[in-house]
Amino acid sequence: MLKRFGVSIPDDLLNKLDRLADKKGYSNRSEVIRDLIRDRFVEKEWELGNKEVVGTVTLVYNHESHELADKLTDLQHHYHKDIISTTHIHLDEHNCLEVLVVRGKATKIKGIADLLISTKGVKHGKLVMTTTGKEIS
Amino acid sequence: MLKRFGVSIPDDLLNKLDRLADKKGYSNRSEVIRDLIRDRFVEKEWELGNKEVVGTVTLVYNHESHELADKLTDLQHHYHKDIISTTHIHLDEHNCLEVLVVRGKATKIKGIADLLISTKGVKHGKLVMTTTGKEIS
Amino acid sequence: MLKRFGVSIPDDLLNKLDRLADKKGYSNRSEVIRDLIRDRFVEKEWELGNKEVVGTVTLVYNHESHELADKLTDLQHHYHKDIISTTHIHLDEHNCLEVLVVRGKATKIKGIADLLISTKGVKHGKLVMTTTGKEIS
Amino acid sequence: MLKRFGVSIPDDLLNKLDRLADKKGYSNRSEVIRDLIRDRFVEKEWELGNKEVVGTVTLVYNHESHELADKLTDLQHHYHKDIISTTHIHLDEHNCLEVLVVRGKATKIKGIADLLISTKGVKHGKLVMTTTGKEIS
Repeated sequence: MLKRFGVSIPDDLLNKLDRLADKKGYSNRSEVIRDLIRDRFVEKEWELGNKEVVGTVTLVYNHESHELADKLTDLQHHYHKDIISTTHIHLDEHNCLEVLVVRGKATKIKGIADLLISTKGVKHGKLVMTTTGKEIS
Repeated sequence: MLKRFGVSIPDDLLNKLDRLADKKGYSNRSEVIRDLIRDRFVEKEWELGNKEVVGTVTLVYNHESHELADKLTDLQHHYHKDIISTTHIHLDEHNCLEVLVVRGKATKIKGIADLLISTKGVKHGKLVMTTTGKEIS
Repeated sequence: MLKRFGVSIPDDLLNKLDRLADKKGYSNRSEVIRDLIRDRFVEKEWELGNKEVVGTVTLVYNHESHELADKLTDLQHHYHKDIISTTHIHLDEHNCLEVLVVRGKATKIKGIADLLISTKGVKHGKLVMTTTGKEIS
Repeated sequence: MLKRFGVSIPDDLLNKLDRLADKKGYSNRSEVIRDLIRDRFVEKEWELGNKEVVGTVTLVYNHESHELADKLTDLQHHYHKDIISTTHIHLDEHNCLEVLVVRGKATKIKGIADLLISTKGVKHGKLVMTTTGKEIS
């Protein structure tokens, strides 16, 4: 069931919010507000550290870099219980994109992401901290 | 629109068909017959050789095998235009499962699958020949 | 360590084996023989029924078919503990290819595959029975 | 070939940088600096709008939400030429995680991501803007 409540905010902030909602394709303000609230809860799950969270790690690298592919595979196998799956896209002859889905305690997942992203030769890497969805409706 | 037609077959063959349908969870004979016909068409697409087909290649291997992971990655990048994506599951500390989705002319796709599956050290490999779905309704 | 032993077979069978090996890109007979033996072991793991196996299920279907996508998603969520991941490729506006990686007892995995493949509207489906790799070297 | 140059920065900023590097598992300052520079270039590729970029979109949602799964599938098929693959993880009976790999012009990719993330019922969504790796060494 949806409940309704009023919100008071400065008009310039409201303008900004409307422009954002419009640009992002939201159909009304409630939708944007709900997403902001959900976002904050997802962050909280990660801050607590010992809650079960889910994340995705995106990596771009050259598979011909000295021993890089091996190092990344070894690291991933070491944490095989936390890594659900890895999708590998062969971008061209040299470049790879990998997206890992990882699940576990926030602090551990962050640690695995940091290890992978900071491996020498990785061109770009990002962790998306998301949620198992259990506590967000 | 569905059309209906009669089929005459020996009773023991019908018994076998019914047992198969039952075991596989089909709800009626028409469903089984339709699937058999579709299967035959998929095979035909592959036999023609120069039609565009889609397939999946499943590989199981030990990523610690001497240079095996490197060789498989190099092969895959060489054919990066035919391989849409590779999903990698870290089965345990040593063993990997990879499923590739490949799309292209049947003869080329078969060739890529054979190359990957016959690579020394691959424990098990299978090609599923399937269809883009365009000509099957 | 590799061991060596002799094999006696009729010459026409040997010819066939050599043609197969050649066509499939194997570099020598031992490689082919080893793969045949591994294949047989993988089949055995599946026959036993209660051993832990791994498989991939490939499905092609039209996502606009009446309630088909929903039915497949519901089925998959019901068995979410056995299905590790699903890769979905949008083949065109209408057709989808999905590859599931499934892990569990052979009889259960076969049952899940049969359910998915026999769902009305699935154009083509195949189960690849493979192995966790633990007992194959 | 690696080149070397000196950098002057306030000592408190250097301290912060060192703490960050340490926390993230980097082995030295050059590694961190290189990654910051690469990050900036990736952002630039996206700002230009008409360059070819690669991204991943992570979505968490309840597949039982009214028509949500259908809407997301329809949207994805509409953009099937830009979406390379979608990995779907069945988190539990109700919740799904999807990671899409998308490739195309930055403005279009951002638009697709916004559409998906702002769809009513999506619990959490994030776009990772990354790179084809071609112009980053």
